[in-house]
Amino acid sequence: MPNWLLPENIADVLPSEARKIEELRRLMLDNFRLYGYELVMPPLLEYLESLLTGAGQDTDLRTFKLVDQISGRMLGLRADMTTQVARIDAHLLNRDSVTRLCYAGSVLHTRPSGLHATREPLQIGAEIYGHAGLEADAEIQELALASLALAGFDEVRLDLSHVGVLRAIIGADPAAAKDEAALYLLLRAKDVPGLDRLTARYAAPVRAALLALPNLYGDVEVLARARAELPELPGIGKALAELAALAASAIGRAEVAIDLADLRGYQYESGAMFALYVPGLPNAVARGGRYDHVGEAFGRARPATGFSLDLRELARLLPTAERKHSIRAPWGNAPELKEKIAELRKSGEVVIQSLPGHSNEQDEFECDRALVLADNGNNWILKNLG
Amino acid sequence: MPNWLLPENIADVLPSEARKIEELRRLMLDNFRLYGYELVMPPLLEYLESLLTGAGQDTDLRTFKLVDQISGRMLGLRADMTTQVARIDAHLLNRDSVTRLCYAGSVLHTRPSGLHATREPLQIGAEIYGHAGLEADAEIQELALASLALAGFDEVRLDLSHVGVLRAIIGADPAAAKDEAALYLLLRAKDVPGLDRLTARYAAPVRAALLALPNLYGDVEVLARARAELPELPGIGKALAELAALAASAIGRAEVAIDLADLRGYQYESGAMFALYVPGLPNAVARGGRYDHVGEAFGRARPATGFSLDLRELARLLPTAERKHSIRAPWGNAPELKEKIAELRKSGEVVIQSLPGHSNEQDEFECDRALVLADNGNNWILKNLG
Repeated sequence: MPNWLLPENIADVLPSEARKIEELRRLMLDNFRLYGYELVMPPLLEYLESLLTGAGQDTDLRTFKLVDQISGRMLGLRADMTTQVARIDAHLLNRDSVTRLCYAGSVLHTRPSGLHATREPLQIGAEIYGHAGLEADAEIQELALASLALAGFDEVRLDLSHVGVLRAIIGADPAAAKDEAALYLLLRAKDVPGLDRLTARYAAPVRAALLALPNLYGDVEVLARARAELPELPGIGKALAELAALAASAIGRAEVAIDLADLRGYQYESGAMFALYVPGLPNAVARGGRYDHVGEAFGRARPATGFSLDLRELARLLPTAERKHSIRAPWGNAPELKEKIAELRKSGEVVIQSLPGHSNEQDEFECDRALVLADNGNNWILKNLG
Repeated sequence: MPNWLLPENIADVLPSEARKIEELRRLMLDNFRLYGYELVMPPLLEYLESLLTGAGQDTDLRTFKLVDQISGRMLGLRADMTTQVARIDAHLLNRDSVTRLCYAGSVLHTRPSGLHATREPLQIGAEIYGHAGLEADAEIQELALASLALAGFDEVRLDLSHVGVLRAIIGADPAAAKDEAALYLLLRAKDVPGLDRLTARYAAPVRAALLALPNLYGDVEVLARARAELPELPGIGKALAELAALAASAIGRAEVAIDLADLRGYQYESGAMFALYVPGLPNAVARGGRYDHVGEAFGRARPATGFSLDLRELARLLPTAERKHSIRAPWGNAPELKEKIAELRKSGEVVIQSLPGHSNEQDEFECDRALVLADNGNNWILKNLG
């Protein structure tokens, strides 16, 4: 096998794509900053047990493991940055007040999440710690929608769901509570026959609610149907009210859908969850939600809510950036030439010096002007290239 | 052991430091772009044999290894990005012309290079492929010096050395050529007694030259001493002439020193090498040089020269950035409030909405103004905070 081949689902990012990603990264980080989010940079590598604290089994299986030569302990390569940032909030910053943090960095997965998915997403996200109220969820949802709008997506669908619904249903019947893991898998697979068999011996309202869940998706009217079809439990009432408020706050910014059987974050989240979809990609481009128990796992109960997305995937959906017009200059050490080039670069122009005997070729730049000596060799001027 | 402790020589970067690093990263990447360097993003993870192609044994020992679940082959976490970028030039871009590439990303080391060194440097660098002449080395040296100047360092020392000197000396005596690895280690340790013993049976001029090397360091006058003390071999003459030209081109931009026994890149480099030093740090902050044989190892002989530095280390030497003045706004869904906040953010102001019942605390932002309702509740205005 040639030594320049890359592993499956691992790829280089070449110039024009890299530029798009870099611009998107800056745009989003700058916008996070305007909302008061402070940037942090957690490490690529941690002790495995820290990295998996508060994370689900999915994350465990996705995490590359290796041995630390220094300590002899197991290390993990981060597969997700959310728990890392929660750890920073809980122990490094250790504030009592509300803390807003953001981050951008590569994560690694042992296996791709789909046939064409990368094993090295570039995760960017924002989190609020210290506020249990729905206002924090609303701000995160707004920020996620604003991020996609900034990136140029004007047709966005927001899918809302809530961990509290299934939790409340399961909590109403000890038999169901014992089967939580199996129920989660059946619901995730929308396996109604399997669900029908497993729930046969549950209390009737619990069984009916579990069988109703896979059909509770659609536009916001689903919330009214859910109120009618699901049992009157306080947890369910609270969850549906939260979803109604979050749906209302997104009106005019996204097409809103409700999917009470969307359990992607169930192992990890603790409240309202959302997923954002854009045309051209069947999977969600961004996901967010509340995960209050992660801080607790780090020994400090701090409510938390946030969202993240993969910049590489998002950038792929955007048109290629136009090549930047630039200036070709000859090689030389003459101070006048050097000064002229420095001056042009200072004004923001890309100036590429030709190395003797070679042409240049670029994906990113298009030399539309050349720096040439005029006035009998007295002045360097710009000449348009045809 | 608590689950929030990090492995040795691995650290989180907290807000004020992260902001400095991010600003430095943008400043340098933007400057690379003004010189016509195109950004690429190689992966964190590759097949081990690709990653170690053309790299020295040092890199091998520093590389974390793991098994790919998909292919069953050994993977490595990049310990250096230079060979990755050379691979991109050789096989992905596959251009015949001169190619300028730049990159910024984390690398991982199994062990720190010093007691306080991080195992996760943030490497940023720039490379020119396809030009064997000294003009490319001069451009890279200029770009490295310009990068440090941009970062605010005005006292920089440039140490120059050249792989060609030792190669030419060793090439002049088959006995010395056989001992190359041992000579490299002795010279690197400046072990003159050991050198004296090992070289006892070499040709007299070769022996004298090897024993002279450890003393050939100092200001540019060293080049004249080297011409006098070293044998008249074509390789040596060429190397000293190149160093003289590179030293001349740095005058006025850095204090120039020559160190012919600096062999840090000997296993890897093929021509002139440089190291940049700034006050406050005993180790070099940036290193660069020529490494023509790496492209060849990837099956395409492409001359190459470049430099790189660790952004984290560099940022640590810079003063903490001032906190950004920002605006505190109350929570609320009133359209007038939302619009006012959006307008302020659009103008570049950081606006932090207080979540009900909580105060905010930030390292990065200082709320010096508040958005308050005035004119009997008709207008949102900015009020200075004491």
